[in-house]
Amino acid sequence: MSDYDTVSAEVEHEDEIPEDHPRYQDLLTRHRIEKGVEKGITHLQGMHAEGRGSAFDYLLGEETIPSADDAERAAAAHLLLADHPVLSINGNVAALVPGEMVDLAETVDADLEVNLFNRTPERMQAIADHLRDHGAEAVKGLEADARIPNLDHQRGKVDEDGIYAADVVLVPLEDGDRAEALGEMDKTEIVIDLNPLSRSPRVAEVPIVDNIIRAVPNITAHARDLVDADRDTLEKIVEEFDREHALEAAEERIRSGF
Amino acid sequence: MSDYDTVSAEVEHEDEIPEDHPRYQDLLTRHRIEKGVEKGITHLQGMHAEGRGSAFDYLLGEETIPSADDAERAAAAHLLLADHPVLSINGNVAALVPGEMVDLAETVDADLEVNLFNRTPERMQAIADHLRDHGAEAVKGLEADARIPNLDHQRGKVDEDGIYAADVVLVPLEDGDRAEALGEMDKTEIVIDLNPLSRSPRVAEVPIVDNIIRAVPNITAHARDLVDADRDTLEKIVEEFDREHALEAAEERIRSGF
Repeated sequence: MSDYDTVSAEVEHEDEIPEDHPRYQDLLTRHRIEKGVEKGITHLQGMHAEGRGSAFDYLLGEETIPSADDAERAAAAHLLLADHPVLSINGNVAALVPGEMVDLAETVDADLEVNLFNRTPERMQAIADHLRDHGAEAVKGLEADARIPNLDHQRGKVDEDGIYAADVVLVPLEDGDRAEALGEMDKTEIVIDLNPLSRSPRVAEVPIVDNIIRAVPNITAHARDLVDADRDTLEKIVEEFDREHALEAAEERIRSGF
Repeated sequence: MSDYDTVSAEVEHEDEIPEDHPRYQDLLTRHRIEKGVEKGITHLQGMHAEGRGSAFDYLLGEETIPSADDAERAAAAHLLLADHPVLSINGNVAALVPGEMVDLAETVDADLEVNLFNRTPERMQAIADHLRDHGAEAVKGLEADARIPNLDHQRGKVDEDGIYAADVVLVPLEDGDRAEALGEMDKTEIVIDLNPLSRSPRVAEVPIVDNIIRAVPNITAHARDLVDADRDTLEKIVEEFDREHALEAAEERIRSGF
């Protein structure tokens, strides 16, 4: 039996959502995306995407399953091993985990780059400002002086000294076409997506099937734990991570776990 | 392998969505909800709810499963047997199937009543106007001269000669609290909901686990087929419908079918 659909729509600030509410995470996520739309950070379709993710999270049990925790540890190791790691930010990421992405970037010494499916100068600027409000010092993506090959002009725009040059990219909530095009650039791609069957996690070297509001702080926690580890230790974590198992375990949980 | 997440955001009119697109129904649904939000018909949270539904529809295979077709036939029989059937319309219903609800109301001689979770005079009026644009003659819900017991003031508002007096109500995409409160009023309740575990279908006499854009035209088709049937035939259809089986079959499809 579920209390899935009983939610109040009349919350002005997230502090008003009771932390002991059985659907706290879902309400918090929806609230942040709604505020993101109101602020011009998030595209209206981001609200739809978030709803879709919310159903998969519900089926996963709204928790970080062990295989997702493994993926988050592998992601931390990849980011720490990278020469030039970049964290990609879209409208939903900015609305949901702005401070958490800034923390992760600082912990693994990565760049933050704004990269939108529905790119407009206003949204680019609003998101860059929003990240700075949450402590970001440098925000890339506004230059857009390079292109991802095999994508249409607008969607392929990146910074030459950002995603274009990166060896490891974290692309949370990425669309399938761009995830695939980035993968073809021989970058190590880390994707966060709640649907283990969607194309983005399927093409990623590290697919994280988890809610971004749990995943990002957990990658940061693993990175803090590993920050003084030697390369051998990090490389061993990377090698031992089994992406097929991660995808299968998530699918199995969705099939049987609810 | 799925093409789940590859969608264009830049469609101005639904005619631009290619009918042979593998995700046609999902794109059409999202587009209609997005237009609903832009027109002030649909609450922003309706976009989230629709996204959630879209994930369940994906897991169901985006088709009317046989048990849903049975439920839709039973719904048609209930509506034809009713003394005073009412079809309840919220912001998502109005955005997704306005003409289809008008058709169904005409076919079974039911009232249409606007009933919103987030009620404002502007949205009530916008939805009533939208239904009239789609051929509705009378639209109830604006009077709001009665209350559903056991619901807070705003959410309990109904028309005394509408939902309050109805013996059979179709409440598509209803929230759990209101579905439960309506059920307690001894009405025969028909719910359309893509999540078989959510409370609304669980409390309904006829739970239809199907996408509303497929379900409503199919109820109408069954009603047209049954419009000249005698009461015995209709009562037999009602009796033979097994709500537990309908819920279990939908859950089984979601577990195993994808």
